[in-house]
Amino acid sequence: MKAIILAGGSGTRLWPLSRKQYPKQLLKIEGDTSLLQSTFERILNLVSAENIISITNTEQAGDVKLQLQNITSGSIVLSEQISKNTAPAIAASLNYLEKTSGNDEIILIVPCDHVIKNTAAFVDSINSAIELANAGYLVTFGVKPSYPETGYGYIQAGEKFNNGYKVKQFREKPDENLAAEFVQKNDFYWNSGIFMGKLSTIKSEFKKYAPEIFDKCQNLKFENQNKISFMDYEALPDISFDYAVLEKSDNLALAELKSDWIDVGSWQSLYNVNPKDENGNVITGNVLINNVKNSYIYSSKELIAVSGLENIILVETEDAIMACRKDHAQDVKILHDKLKEKESETLELHKTVYRPWGYYTCLNRGEGYQTKMICVHPGQKLSIQSHNHRSEHWVVLEGTAFVVLDNENHTIEAGGSIDIPVKAIHSLQNPYDTDLKVIEVQKGTILLESDIIRYQDMYNRV
Amino acid sequence: MKAIILAGGSGTRLWPLSRKQYPKQLLKIEGDTSLLQSTFERILNLVSAENIISITNTEQAGDVKLQLQNITSGSIVLSEQISKNTAPAIAASLNYLEKTSGNDEIILIVPCDHVIKNTAAFVDSINSAIELANAGYLVTFGVKPSYPETGYGYIQAGEKFNNGYKVKQFREKPDENLAAEFVQKNDFYWNSGIFMGKLSTIKSEFKKYAPEIFDKCQNLKFENQNKISFMDYEALPDISFDYAVLEKSDNLALAELKSDWIDVGSWQSLYNVNPKDENGNVITGNVLINNVKNSYIYSSKELIAVSGLENIILVETEDAIMACRKDHAQDVKILHDKLKEKESETLELHKTVYRPWGYYTCLNRGEGYQTKMICVHPGQKLSIQSHNHRSEHWVVLEGTAFVVLDNENHTIEAGGSIDIPVKAIHSLQNPYDTDLKVIEVQKGTILLESDIIRYQDMYNRV
Repeated sequence: MKAIILAGGSGTRLWPLSRKQYPKQLLKIEGDTSLLQSTFERILNLVSAENIISITNTEQAGDVKLQLQNITSGSIVLSEQISKNTAPAIAASLNYLEKTSGNDEIILIVPCDHVIKNTAAFVDSINSAIELANAGYLVTFGVKPSYPETGYGYIQAGEKFNNGYKVKQFREKPDENLAAEFVQKNDFYWNSGIFMGKLSTIKSEFKKYAPEIFDKCQNLKFENQNKISFMDYEALPDISFDYAVLEKSDNLALAELKSDWIDVGSWQSLYNVNPKDENGNVITGNVLINNVKNSYIYSSKELIAVSGLENIILVETEDAIMACRKDHAQDVKILHDKLKEKESETLELHKTVYRPWGYYTCLNRGEGYQTKMICVHPGQKLSIQSHNHRSEHWVVLEGTAFVVLDNENHTIEAGGSIDIPVKAIHSLQNPYDTDLKVIEVQKGTILLESDIIRYQDMYNRV
Repeated sequence: MKAIILAGGSGTRLWPLSRKQYPKQLLKIEGDTSLLQSTFERILNLVSAENIISITNTEQAGDVKLQLQNITSGSIVLSEQISKNTAPAIAASLNYLEKTSGNDEIILIVPCDHVIKNTAAFVDSINSAIELANAGYLVTFGVKPSYPETGYGYIQAGEKFNNGYKVKQFREKPDENLAAEFVQKNDFYWNSGIFMGKLSTIKSEFKKYAPEIFDKCQNLKFENQNKISFMDYEALPDISFDYAVLEKSDNLALAELKSDWIDVGSWQSLYNVNPKDENGNVITGNVLINNVKNSYIYSSKELIAVSGLENIILVETEDAIMACRKDHAQDVKILHDKLKEKESETLELHKTVYRPWGYYTCLNRGEGYQTKMICVHPGQKLSIQSHNHRSEHWVVLEGTAFVVLDNENHTIEAGGSIDIPVKAIHSLQNPYDTDLKVIEVQKGTILLESDIIRYQDMYNRV
């Protein structure tokens, strides 16, 4: 068996926690690992690391690799130049896979925006469906609905056969009445978005129903670090595999996914997945409440004090605050679209950005300067680098910095400082046991993250 | 005529905009001047500056003086060691005033948390009531209610005499039904909190009904800068003049205040005083809304995006976010009390602190260090000072700094930096035409604002 993890994401529906360059699958939504890491670890029970392909896009690939390397090495990360929904991503992944896989190889395809806690039941469900896949069916996995959720798609089961069912119909997100009807009827399942089939089955169904996508994704060139090189990628339609292929196929089987399963597609589902206090609230971070009910209050840093509200979502990240009705959590998309029109920077990156060596936080910015707090974890080192357009000035706050500046070594204790002129080759390193914290003042008319020439990097980012 | 402006305040009900050390009367709530400044300018139409006494407390006195000096010099600012509500403040002010005033002098006493736009009508109303004051009455001013407000106190008018009415009764904040009844009855007025009388009248009523306060405030010592020195001040009861004296007196008259009048006592009243958009919203700062109605959204800095909410108040200041129902805006006091129990720093000062020379913003803080952005306006200069417990490191971001360090002059352009060792005598000055912005990194085991020895100060703060 091989597996494709759909690891891209737009960071829209969980904004402002989720950002374009750091979307929800990279966040620790539940527990100590990110959704991506949890998905990867779950799949490792079925497929060895080198047979797992994660597909994402250029902006997110670095963080995806970093998170997977923290679990095990050897897995493949493909990165699209541009995100184009699941149909192009799956077509490209299949093209990569077929170079090393036989036609009868079973391919498991999983999104990574789910929380699933019962791994044993998950593994069991997948294994039970192998027979259906081997019989040439495209197997979708359905979850027995526990309540009338209006935010999910539903699949109606037909007659039972083998270890599963025929598929009678797909139904997109229903209204409340219809959802209640579905739950009562007993033959409706939530569409988990997970499916599998033989490589030959998936390919032939794809070719039959979406040849315009499938054909363009043949003979792709995979560059260094598995970046997909494909000139017409931008011309591909922005369409899901479900919509382009699955819902049209008459070669489908439905298998029940017997584990727990929650799609973390909205703030409301994030609320659902978390434990509540006695008033039905999910409270995270520096929050004070008085007479608040059935709400989700999330603070990443600053104090949030709330009184007398019910059924709201209120989220603080360092540079944005979002508030909406919990039962209208899909409105976040409307806010996101409006902010996109205004080219709001809050959609792209967080104020605090995580790197392999630690993290930095933007403190303030003005015409010709920018100030950051940089934290380098023990034993870590930023790349040996230079900048064409900015000078830097470092003041050590905590710990001790080891700086190499134009081949000269400097050891700088807390309180000390050093100037890094434009074009000087320099590196910042923390060879000690405690975090190193440094204030960096950048000066220059051009202040871009991309103005960085790397000469050597312990995380292979040169 | 002389006037007492009650300029103290606890910063409770408009938290987080209002803080203990920078409460609402110092804020620009409406228009370009603070409530204190607007009040002072209004009274200047009746009383000359040197006959106006503003009474506040030690923590706020510096900012009160600064704001009044921006209008005119020569007025008196009294500062209590500790705030004790209006009865002790008025008793102390009377004691100060009687040294220079005759018994027949008329004293006008005004709070400064009102918005009054029609100054002519205000002046006219006060002047019309002088006859009543001269006749020996304690004159309260009432406002014809325009709607059944439950947040105000009411005064019922008795028979008409002179230019006013007798007072039938005081009624504290009524419930909705009672407020509606009051408005219909036509003889109820909102209690404006403004009153006046001859010095002898006020003194004799005070002595009659609250001798325990009045007597203790005789023969006070007024120190340098008019700080009230009174050893037992702390032992005085925390009680309002209305409650201690006014409501008990049988020597009262009611005069109508014919101007507009809004008591800015809560977020809801602040909402009332501001212009609304077509959906009844008051929106200030960096805010994006979608389908929001009858709400007050206030951003001091970071983006607030709100969807689908009605009747809420949502306020962001740099270090705190507050959300509550607009019609339960008094709940802010509950939040404030809970934060007080936790000794929350967000009650004391803002992250950005205004000073006579400009302002500073706290950027971050850790064990043994603190980082600030300091902005010095053109022509301004911080005091010549030293610190016993911290070193400082300054990096110039914008403009040019003129620094004197242990009698040596340094001119530092943007990008440059300088170390200020512990105990070194130094000053930071901006003799140029544009703002000077500096990053200050403080290092030391004790990092307190109070660790400052001032040798010379152009704002008389030595």
